[in-house]
Amino acid sequence: MTVTLAQLKNELNRVLLNLSFPPDKADLCATTFASNSRDGVYSHGLNRFPVFVELIKEKLINPLAEPACLERKGMFERWTGNNGLGIYNATRCMERAITLAKKDGIGCVAIQHTNHWMRGGTYGWQAADAGCIGICFTNAIAGMPPWGGDHPTLGNNPLVIAVPRNGGHVVLDMAMSQYSYGKLQEYQLRNENLPFPGGHDTDGNLTTNPASIIQSKRALPIGFWKGSGLALMIDILVTTLSGGRSTQEITNDKKEVGVSQVFICINPNNLDASQIENILDYTKTAGSTTGKHSISYPGENTLRTRKKNDVEGIPVNTEIWERICKM
Amino acid sequence: MTVTLAQLKNELNRVLLNLSFPPDKADLCATTFASNSRDGVYSHGLNRFPVFVELIKEKLINPLAEPACLERKGMFERWTGNNGLGIYNATRCMERAITLAKKDGIGCVAIQHTNHWMRGGTYGWQAADAGCIGICFTNAIAGMPPWGGDHPTLGNNPLVIAVPRNGGHVVLDMAMSQYSYGKLQEYQLRNENLPFPGGHDTDGNLTTNPASIIQSKRALPIGFWKGSGLALMIDILVTTLSGGRSTQEITNDKKEVGVSQVFICINPNNLDASQIENILDYTKTAGSTTGKHSISYPGENTLRTRKKNDVEGIPVNTEIWERICKM
Repeated sequence: MTVTLAQLKNELNRVLLNLSFPPDKADLCATTFASNSRDGVYSHGLNRFPVFVELIKEKLINPLAEPACLERKGMFERWTGNNGLGIYNATRCMERAITLAKKDGIGCVAIQHTNHWMRGGTYGWQAADAGCIGICFTNAIAGMPPWGGDHPTLGNNPLVIAVPRNGGHVVLDMAMSQYSYGKLQEYQLRNENLPFPGGHDTDGNLTTNPASIIQSKRALPIGFWKGSGLALMIDILVTTLSGGRSTQEITNDKKEVGVSQVFICINPNNLDASQIENILDYTKTAGSTTGKHSISYPGENTLRTRKKNDVEGIPVNTEIWERICKM
Repeated sequence: MTVTLAQLKNELNRVLLNLSFPPDKADLCATTFASNSRDGVYSHGLNRFPVFVELIKEKLINPLAEPACLERKGMFERWTGNNGLGIYNATRCMERAITLAKKDGIGCVAIQHTNHWMRGGTYGWQAADAGCIGICFTNAIAGMPPWGGDHPTLGNNPLVIAVPRNGGHVVLDMAMSQYSYGKLQEYQLRNENLPFPGGHDTDGNLTTNPASIIQSKRALPIGFWKGSGLALMIDILVTTLSGGRSTQEITNDKKEVGVSQVFICINPNNLDASQIENILDYTKTAGSTTGKHSISYPGENTLRTRKKNDVEGIPVNTEIWERICKM
């Protein structure tokens, strides 16, 4: 079944108000979850909403908390999220980084004790909508072994890079694992193998079998040793810049709460839009012999899905939708 | 055969002075090339020096040029390298980013019309030696198809992230291709297959055969579509922020000159050294069932090679060494 963006947003907003969210925060969170589903990121839209509600009920996330600045040095600021809403804190941090960048070219906000921001791309689009380049990254609970290791001590630590563009922003939103556990489960439910190896099995062999990877907990970093190194660097950056919790401390607590994040915004006086168009056009001239894949820029499929879902409605998992309607 | 760091540096310095380099630039370039070999990055040390000398002789790189600031907005600066020495320009840019960050927490310098910086890690170590976090990236001549494409329109666009650490800086220096062409040639010369697929052959099949990839020019981005997206974003960032040349323009000119780069430096008041140690220690607890690989942090092997080569001498390719001694 499908629902409209307004239906989805209104229903989520109602649930959050029942959970005693202040109206502005209920509105922001409902809008963000609904927009994530609208953009095709169902795993961090409606489908994630019940998990979010549970964390609120367990009082692991405080919907009343306000983020606060702990320290300033010029264009760098260190904030605490006070264990509040991840979506709200991330939006405030990118907003602050945008303000710094609009004034002095570049700004950086690191935040400790915040929570899952759901879809990282949300804050990339936010920066790009403000005419700025946005770069942000977060740590996460361990779900991936480092290269050479056999059990997870690295988070998938997503990296977002967004560049504003009139025809549709260019927004890269990528985790450091080749496939998310959500994606592995999708393949498993369809009884399909992965198109490329997505991890090691318990015997240490690369495998395309999603069930083997879910069992071994040995998801593969992109580019083997390279993605492993990049995930580690992201944990070091967010932890030390925010003074917050590392993947180790998050993992020891068993629940993915109290994470650390960094938001960087760059706003030069002139960004030559034609340069971006030329790069995208040139990249697409690479053609394809197999016809198996088309060449798309990061964010292009998101925009296509957004337009499609705006017309045809947003597909929802009926069971989850009905459960939320009864909340 | 092996040589000492001093021998290597003196010999390169002599050649550069003969090419009418100003003494300070000859010294910086000779030191950087020699240090790259000392750190085990032979491909961008002595082995690359003859190519560099050719570009100087062809007047494609001007050793007399000075970089200049074109535009300032607070902590963001746009520079031109005036087609001068890549090593010199990159060192000046990171130096400037360090100065901005030490004053106001973060600084960003984008440079157009510069040249190959050789080993990107050099500028990561430079920032970390100054007690700062350094992030830099560059575009390059096309050598990798985008995901879904069959001929190269993306550079391998290396990304460097460095964090200062007393026991040895943590420095990630990674190109977006799974294997460099230099690495493919090494395997080919040894008549060995790659340990993991490194590209597509001319029929569009993933292959571990280095010769097939050299022939097809279809090197594989790390993480397939993910590294492809990240390489594209890096080209967009360096080109638009510097107002310089994109991979397309570099590639059209057939020679890898006149590239674009970005240098970001972050210098908060407090970086808790114990947090970094805890993260590295925890990551290494992931162990290894196979014993095939050990877990190392980015920069760890570099430091080990540096110490070894300082004691045992720096291994050099005899033919290249003798050629340079006759220059």
